[in-house]
Amino acid sequence: MPNLPAQMTVVAISKPGGPEVLVPETRAVPVPKAGEILVKVAAAGVNRPDVAQRSGSYPPPPGASDLPGLEIAGEVVALGEGAKHKIGDKVMSLVAGGGYAQYCIAQDAQAMTVPPSLSMQEAGAIPETLMTVWHNVFERGALQAGETLLIHGGSSGIGTMAIQLAKAFGAKVIVTVGSQDKADACLKLGADHAVNYKTEDFVEAVKKATGGNGANVILDMVGGDYIDRNYDAAAVEGRIVQIAFLSGTPKASANFAKLMVKRLHHTGSTLRPRSNADKAAMVAAIEAKVLPLLREGRVKPLMDSTFPLEKAADAHRRMETSEHIGKIVLAV
Amino acid sequence: MPNLPAQMTVVAISKPGGPEVLVPETRAVPVPKAGEILVKVAAAGVNRPDVAQRSGSYPPPPGASDLPGLEIAGEVVALGEGAKHKIGDKVMSLVAGGGYAQYCIAQDAQAMTVPPSLSMQEAGAIPETLMTVWHNVFERGALQAGETLLIHGGSSGIGTMAIQLAKAFGAKVIVTVGSQDKADACLKLGADHAVNYKTEDFVEAVKKATGGNGANVILDMVGGDYIDRNYDAAAVEGRIVQIAFLSGTPKASANFAKLMVKRLHHTGSTLRPRSNADKAAMVAAIEAKVLPLLREGRVKPLMDSTFPLEKAADAHRRMETSEHIGKIVLAV
Repeated sequence: MPNLPAQMTVVAISKPGGPEVLVPETRAVPVPKAGEILVKVAAAGVNRPDVAQRSGSYPPPPGASDLPGLEIAGEVVALGEGAKHKIGDKVMSLVAGGGYAQYCIAQDAQAMTVPPSLSMQEAGAIPETLMTVWHNVFERGALQAGETLLIHGGSSGIGTMAIQLAKAFGAKVIVTVGSQDKADACLKLGADHAVNYKTEDFVEAVKKATGGNGANVILDMVGGDYIDRNYDAAAVEGRIVQIAFLSGTPKASANFAKLMVKRLHHTGSTLRPRSNADKAAMVAAIEAKVLPLLREGRVKPLMDSTFPLEKAADAHRRMETSEHIGKIVLAV
Repeated sequence: MPNLPAQMTVVAISKPGGPEVLVPETRAVPVPKAGEILVKVAAAGVNRPDVAQRSGSYPPPPGASDLPGLEIAGEVVALGEGAKHKIGDKVMSLVAGGGYAQYCIAQDAQAMTVPPSLSMQEAGAIPETLMTVWHNVFERGALQAGETLLIHGGSSGIGTMAIQLAKAFGAKVIVTVGSQDKADACLKLGADHAVNYKTEDFVEAVKKATGGNGANVILDMVGGDYIDRNYDAAAVEGRIVQIAFLSGTPKASANFAKLMVKRLHHTGSTLRPRSNADKAAMVAAIEAKVLPLLREGRVKPLMDSTFPLEKAADAHRRMETSEHIGKIVLAV
C-alpha cells in the first residue's frame, strides 16, 4: 500500500467512564483482509451505542475493533482481495467499530457510494441511522404508504431520518419530543404532528390524530412504561419495533391482552451483531430504494453539530445532554 | 322452509355463574339471512371461550346469539339468499354463537364440507380448533418445515390439533403438559418431546431439544410468567403467538431486551371478533391446505368425550377440571 502511513491517530476508550476517558492514541493503520476495504476517514458519526461502549455497558462483539465509531465516510485507499470498490471511491459505510480514527476498515459489500448531494460530513452521519431506520421501520415494521408511523425520540438522529423516509414513502408521521424547539425541527422536516411528552399524553394525541385508529407502526427507543402505552397507541395489526431502552431498563410490565386483542406485532432488533451477509442485504435494499431519494436531495441527514476527532469527548458530552437535534459527527 | 319446526331446544346461560347455569330452553328456530345457512346441528364443540362466556367474563359480540357454542357440524336445512351450499349438505362451521342448539345459523362462506373420514361428532370438534391453529401457527407464526414449534397446553383441543398439523407440515414439535397421561397422548399424536411443566423447566428442555437454538414458533395459551420464559425459549427471529391467558391474568413483566436482541416477534389474536371476510379467507386457505390432510385421515381431532346437549353443564365441568385430553363435544 504505497503512500499510506504506518501509524494513525485514533480516539480510544482509555478505561470505562465519562467522556473524559476518550483520548487520542497512535495506532497502526489496519490492513484490509479479503472482502474488506481501507477507508481514509473524513467523518465519523457519533451514536448512542458509542456512549454505552465508552461507559462500559456495551462491549464490542468478538473480533471487532476496541475503538468506538460505527459509521464513517471517506475515501477508499486500499483494497482487500476481491473487493469491488476502486481506490479513490468516496464511500459511506457501517463499520464494526473503529470509526473514531484516521483510517478504518469497512466491508466492501457494506460501503455505499456517497451521492454528490451530500457533504462528507453528512455522509458520515448516514449509514448507522439509515440502516437502523430502513430495517426497523420498513423491513421489520413493514410501513406502507397511507399508514401512520409514531416515532418516539423524533428529534434524534434516527428520528429525524425516520421522519423524512416515512414521509418520502407516503406515510403520516407523529413524533414525540421533549421541547418546542425539537417539535419545530420535526415539523419542519415533514412530521405531521409533534407531541411534547412532557405536557401531553402521547396515547391520547395519537388516537386524536388518527381518528381513533392508532398508529400502524411505532418506532420505540424508550421502553419502560412506553411499552404498555404503545400497545394502547397502536392500531389493530400494528407493529411496534423496539430499538433501545433509553428509559434505563428493558424490564417492564404490560397488559398483553391488548397485544392479543389488537393482534399487535411487537418486535425489535439491534444492528451491530447482525451478520455481514444480513448487513450487505440491507445495503443492497437501501441502494435500490433509498439512495435515489438522497441523490435527489429529498432526504438528507439533519446535522446537529460537528466536532474535530480530537474533541470526541465534547461530542459525547453533547449527546448526553440530549439537547441535540439530529446527528453529531466527528470531522477527521 | 317446509318441514322445519318453529321451535327448538337450546342450552342457554340463565345467568352468569358455574356450570349449573346452563339450562335447556325452547327458542324459535332462526331464519337465515342473505349469505347465511341454517344447519340442523349434529354436534357442537365445547371451547374455553364458552366457559368464559358462561361465567360472565366474555360477553358475546354485538349482533351475535346470546347462546354459547362457537363451532358446529350438521346438515344444511335452509338457505339464505345467495348461499352456495345445498339443502342436505353435511357441513362443519365456525359460528358467531348459538352452537348449543338443535338449529344454528352459519355463514355460507365459513361452512366447510365434512370429509367422509370424519364422524359428525369429530366434525363438530374441528372448526374453532382448526381455524385457531391454522391462523396462529401457520399464518401469524409462519411455521416452516424443519422449524421447531413449542406448544403450551399440548393436550388441549388446540394443542392436539397443532401437534398433528405441525408434524404433517414437517416441523419438529415440543409440548408442555401437566401429567404423564397427557405426555403420552401428545407423543402418540406425533409430538417429538413432551415436557411436564410440573417437574421440568421448559426453557431448559427446549434448549436441550434444539441444540441450544430454541423454538422458532411458540403457541402460548398460558401467559403470566410464561411470557418472559417464552422469550428465553425462543430462537433468534422466533415468533410467539399469544392466544389466551390461562394463568389468569394478561398483565405480566418481561425483559424486552431479549425480544430486541433475539429479534423476536410477539403477536397474538382472538378469532371471534374477526370479520366474516377474514374468517372466510381463513376457511378458503384451510380448504386448500388442510382439508386434504383430513380427507386422507392423516389429521383428525383427538376426542376426549361426548355429552348430550342437555348435559352441557357436565361438559363444562369436565373442561374446568383440565383433565381432558383433546376435544369435548355435545351430541345433539
